[in-house]
Amino acid sequence: MAQKPSIPKGTRDFSPAEVAKRQYIMQIIKSNFEKFGFQPIETPSFENSDTLMGKYGEEGDRLIFKILNSGDFLAKADENLLNNKDSLKLTSHISEKALRYDLTVPFARYVVQHQNEIEFPFKRYQIQPVWRADRPQKGRFREFYQCDADVVGSTSLWQEVELVQLYDSVFSELGLEGVTIKINNRKILSGIAEVIGASDKLIDFTVALDKLDKIGEDGVKKEMTEKGISAKAIEKVQPLFQFTGTISEKIDKLSELLASSEEGLKGVAELRFICDSIQNLGLDKSVLDLDVTLARGLNYYTGAIFEVAPPASVAMGSIGGGGRYDDLTGIFGLKNMSGVGISFGLDRIYLVIEELNLFPETVTSTSTALFINYGEKEALYAMKAIASLRKAGVKVELYPDNAKVGKQFQHADKRGIKFAVIAGETEMEKGIFALKDLISGEQFEVDFIALQSSLQK
Amino acid sequence: MAQKPSIPKGTRDFSPAEVAKRQYIMQIIKSNFEKFGFQPIETPSFENSDTLMGKYGEEGDRLIFKILNSGDFLAKADENLLNNKDSLKLTSHISEKALRYDLTVPFARYVVQHQNEIEFPFKRYQIQPVWRADRPQKGRFREFYQCDADVVGSTSLWQEVELVQLYDSVFSELGLEGVTIKINNRKILSGIAEVIGASDKLIDFTVALDKLDKIGEDGVKKEMTEKGISAKAIEKVQPLFQFTGTISEKIDKLSELLASSEEGLKGVAELRFICDSIQNLGLDKSVLDLDVTLARGLNYYTGAIFEVAPPASVAMGSIGGGGRYDDLTGIFGLKNMSGVGISFGLDRIYLVIEELNLFPETVTSTSTALFINYGEKEALYAMKAIASLRKAGVKVELYPDNAKVGKQFQHADKRGIKFAVIAGETEMEKGIFALKDLISGEQFEVDFIALQSSLQK
Repeated sequence: MAQKPSIPKGTRDFSPAEVAKRQYIMQIIKSNFEKFGFQPIETPSFENSDTLMGKYGEEGDRLIFKILNSGDFLAKADENLLNNKDSLKLTSHISEKALRYDLTVPFARYVVQHQNEIEFPFKRYQIQPVWRADRPQKGRFREFYQCDADVVGSTSLWQEVELVQLYDSVFSELGLEGVTIKINNRKILSGIAEVIGASDKLIDFTVALDKLDKIGEDGVKKEMTEKGISAKAIEKVQPLFQFTGTISEKIDKLSELLASSEEGLKGVAELRFICDSIQNLGLDKSVLDLDVTLARGLNYYTGAIFEVAPPASVAMGSIGGGGRYDDLTGIFGLKNMSGVGISFGLDRIYLVIEELNLFPETVTSTSTALFINYGEKEALYAMKAIASLRKAGVKVELYPDNAKVGKQFQHADKRGIKFAVIAGETEMEKGIFALKDLISGEQFEVDFIALQSSLQK
Repeated sequence: MAQKPSIPKGTRDFSPAEVAKRQYIMQIIKSNFEKFGFQPIETPSFENSDTLMGKYGEEGDRLIFKILNSGDFLAKADENLLNNKDSLKLTSHISEKALRYDLTVPFARYVVQHQNEIEFPFKRYQIQPVWRADRPQKGRFREFYQCDADVVGSTSLWQEVELVQLYDSVFSELGLEGVTIKINNRKILSGIAEVIGASDKLIDFTVALDKLDKIGEDGVKKEMTEKGISAKAIEKVQPLFQFTGTISEKIDKLSELLASSEEGLKGVAELRFICDSIQNLGLDKSVLDLDVTLARGLNYYTGAIFEVAPPASVAMGSIGGGGRYDDLTGIFGLKNMSGVGISFGLDRIYLVIEELNLFPETVTSTSTALFINYGEKEALYAMKAIASLRKAGVKVELYPDNAKVGKQFQHADKRGIKFAVIAGETEMEKGIFALKDLISGEQFEVDFIALQSSLQK
């Protein structure tokens, strides 16, 4: 035990300062979720393995943390698998539970399991950690929080409108100016695939188109050709290379471009409703933009697709994303439950706010004042004041030992505590306190009422 | 997948109503922790196995959930262990991480790992789930929250005084009348063991003495004799059979009884300081009582021992406990770090508050008002009001579809929403809203300002 202890790679300890900042962000997300009518649920950290396995693809299955069965887990294990050291197949014999990989699958499981208690449409939010056995790297952890809001049981496009407003409301309250909420629609992507006549080339197409800013029209067209997209197809979508203007103008262009695709036009109509409504209702500090290259979650999203980019001054990937999936709960046997939801990327939002210096100074868990300890009798005098201050909601504490006064002041300083309260023999006799502002160095004699009102400021 | 999905035994889903109530309790605990100068930390859900194993005894080791190594975990596993199906020994070969079993050991690990960044004395709180592979039963779960506050790096008895106040402050704010904070001291137990001349019989002694109310003095003495405690020893502690009166009187009796034990008298002095201070400072709704049968955590506590009993009207075990341990961080190589801490039992506190009907009516995550949806144009009118109300902090929502009005009202009813706002064509033309109180059935025409002030009440 001489070795200094450590924690598993990809996990983190959070100091008091970090917890306070994380809670500040989560509190704003949570209060906005509730203002928008979302209600919290919580699901267990681990689920039965068959609830999770097979829901995230082969790669996902590999990244799920499995929990070893308790007790004599090998007793019933297949001997052949053991002898062959077949880790993959043995897993299901010695592990029946696994840590949550995201919040969406547990939510779908929850909805199906509790369908008779739930009043639909059901707007739920969930802020809980998830675990992935991913290779840790900068900004990617094996344990991290997801903050999700989803509605299930309604196909109304007002949900999409509200989710755009919700993003705007949260990021505006966090003080972020110029967040871009990018929107696209799966049906528009399908329409484009129809038009270029190659749905298997859709990802190649959007990936190439996304590079327009960087490599220019010719570069993009070259890449598309290399990927096997025909010159004729590229010609058909020529308007996408001059895809500028307001959202309304962009939607008009798409409407023309996708005129031959029924599916595509459905997507245009959905987009138009959402964007027009947002235009009518207005956003606070964010901007809504249409981005036809947005193709996240292509395998499960069926309608709107969202992704949020931080203010342009910060070099960082998306800080949120989401979309509509028409069959959320089908995997658990409950058909025809359309869902739409968004997620907030807590860790990245934290980094953005830190970089832009937007955490309010008041975000701290430290005490407002430290009472200096001058010995048993004086400490009791201090403790009486402390009890009253705490009742009034003021965060205060007594230095626990009658140590050298210099050491006690140093403690306040290192802890970032703003005030010291001196309650020695002199003050005690006069029934007063000396309040010292540790930043300005000023010191005043105050009675209890003045002390309380000073510390409550 | 036709089978209805379920969750692992011993785990729970929490509905919106349950989450709201749990958060209400946790919020009160948290805000009191901070008022008392404790700061939050968070540690990872899983730790390296060697951080946890061997810290909770053999039984504890068995109850720790182990996480299977990712990838081809059998590749490096010992063939003999596999062939012999030696589950116990194989575990450390195929599992390097384990889920947190409590918050104390991770805290000790945190203190040692971050000792150079921490300013001592360090008052930390931690509210996080822990996991135990215990047999699930009523009130015992495999995943549950612990709410701990500990101070490390100070031997001052003011800490114990503050922890008693902290218990009182939390339970009083929760509305509980007559919670009993029971206190004892390890050194007093040592003193009693000295006096009865059999330290190996201490637990038998306290267990028997604890039954005084139920089986009477003769019954207790009979049990003690059966357990091998001599008649002479029982005679020596005769005062404990009439151990009544105020705390001060009880302490006086102990002082006499333990006159021959240096250790015991140290315990008496500590108790006296704590109890005198609390008497001087006063408690709100709780009662402090001395209970010499309190012997929890006998193996690690070295000073004060705490346990909290709910109001007598509720039949329930302890709702909190804690104590002083002189060598918290020694297991990780950092000596001479005294710690003292307390824990709140969230699940039991929840049941007590539920049973006494003490959850405020306002504890709910549901919306204050539902706007009835009369179609696209009207919904946009409603959405404008909704956006303003949300900015003012009011929780409101629009029924997403233009469904039958009766169905929409039913939805509000089932969700426990108090008000419906009718914004149909008539209201829209007049620029007003009809506000319907769904409990009284009353309905008023209001302008936006009146609407907002009604819903903010």
